[in-house]
Amino acid sequence: MAMALALGGGQDAERKVKVAEVALRALLCGLGALAAALVATDTQTRTFFSLQKKASYTDMKAMVFLVDAAAVAAGYSLLQLAARCCGGGAMSSGRGDGGGRGRALSWCVFSCDQALAYVLLAAVAAALQASVVAKRGQPELQWMGICALYGAFCRQAGAGLATAVVAGLAAVLLAFLSAFNLFRLYGSGGTKS
Amino acid sequence: MAMALALGGGQDAERKVKVAEVALRALLCGLGALAAALVATDTQTRTFFSLQKKASYTDMKAMVFLVDAAAVAAGYSLLQLAARCCGGGAMSSGRGDGGGRGRALSWCVFSCDQALAYVLLAAVAAALQASVVAKRGQPELQWMGICALYGAFCRQAGAGLATAVVAGLAAVLLAFLSAFNLFRLYGSGGTKS
Repeated sequence: MAMALALGGGQDAERKVKVAEVALRALLCGLGALAAALVATDTQTRTFFSLQKKASYTDMKAMVFLVDAAAVAAGYSLLQLAARCCGGGAMSSGRGDGGGRGRALSWCVFSCDQALAYVLLAAVAAALQASVVAKRGQPELQWMGICALYGAFCRQAGAGLATAVVAGLAAVLLAFLSAFNLFRLYGSGGTKS
Repeated sequence: MAMALALGGGQDAERKVKVAEVALRALLCGLGALAAALVATDTQTRTFFSLQKKASYTDMKAMVFLVDAAAVAAGYSLLQLAARCCGGGAMSSGRGDGGGRGRALSWCVFSCDQALAYVLLAAVAAALQASVVAKRGQPELQWMGICALYGAFCRQAGAGLATAVVAGLAAVLLAFLSAFNLFRLYGSGGTKS
C-alpha cells in the first residue's frame, strides 16, 4: 500500500520509480555475484581414517542451479545497467521514443525481469530444500545430514543462500516495477476519474 | 507479444482479460485441488523380510509444503470465483466503483495473486528438487534413491507434481493479468500518443 501511495503523483512518481529501478538492479547485480561466488568457491576436504573426502557444491544439483541462476541474474542486471547508462533510460522505461518501439522494449524488459524473478526464486527454493535435508538429514529415508562432518562447508553455503534470498526479493521488487512500467502504457487515464 | 497485441483494443480487451481471468482461476482451482489430493493420498507399504515399511508424502517436508501450497491455491481461487459471482466482477477488476476503493481492491487482489504465484512456484521447485533426489539418489552423500523400492508411490507423486507444475503456470499467468488490471489504473493515457 505504501507503494500505491508512492506511485500516486505523475512526474515525481516516474522519477522515483526510475531511481528505485537503478538501485534494485545494482543491488541485484552485487548480491547475485556475491551469492554465486560464495557457493561456487565452497569446498571442504576432510580426512577420515586416512581416507580423504571432499564436499563440493557440485554434489548437489540444486546448488549448481542456484549458482547458475545467481550468475545470470548478476550478468543480466549489469547489462541492464549498462543499457540504461548508454541509452539514457529508453531501454528500461520503454518510453524513449513513445509508441510502438518503446512498448516493444517494455515488453522485452518486462518478460526478462519476470522470468528472472521466477527462476531465481525457484532456484532459491530448491537450494533451501536441499540445504535443509543436508543439514538435518531425512531419517525416514536413511539419508544422513552432512553438516556435522562438513561444518565450514555448510556455513559458507548458508551465507551464499542467505545472499541469494535477498537477491530473490530484489528480483521480485524489480518484476513489480517493470510490470508497472509496462502496464501503465495500457492505461486509459484511470487516474483522472 | 501475442498478449501485447491481444491487450490492444479498449472495451474488447477488457472483456477478454475478464474471461481469461475467470478461466485461469477455475483451472487453478481444479488443478490445485487435484495436485493436493494426488500427493496427500500417496502412500505405499512394502514388506521386506517380514518387516513392513511405509512410504508417505510426509516423509519429505517439500511434499508437505507442496500439498499446503496447492490446497491454498485451490481455496483462494474458489473464494475469488465466488467473490466474482457475487460482486459482479468489482472484486477482480478493481473498477467496480471507480477511484479509491476499486484501486485498493485491485492492490489487494494483485498482492494475493503475486504471493500465490511465487509461493506455488517455490513449492513446486522444492518438491521437484526433492523428487529428483528421491528418484536418482545422491551417491556423493550416500543417499539412495527410493523409487526402485516404492514404484507406485513415485508414479503417483510424479502425477501430482506434473499437475502442480501446470497449476503454477496458471498462477503465473494470473499474476500477469492482475498486474495488468492494477497498473493500467496508473496509466496517463500512454496508449493515445
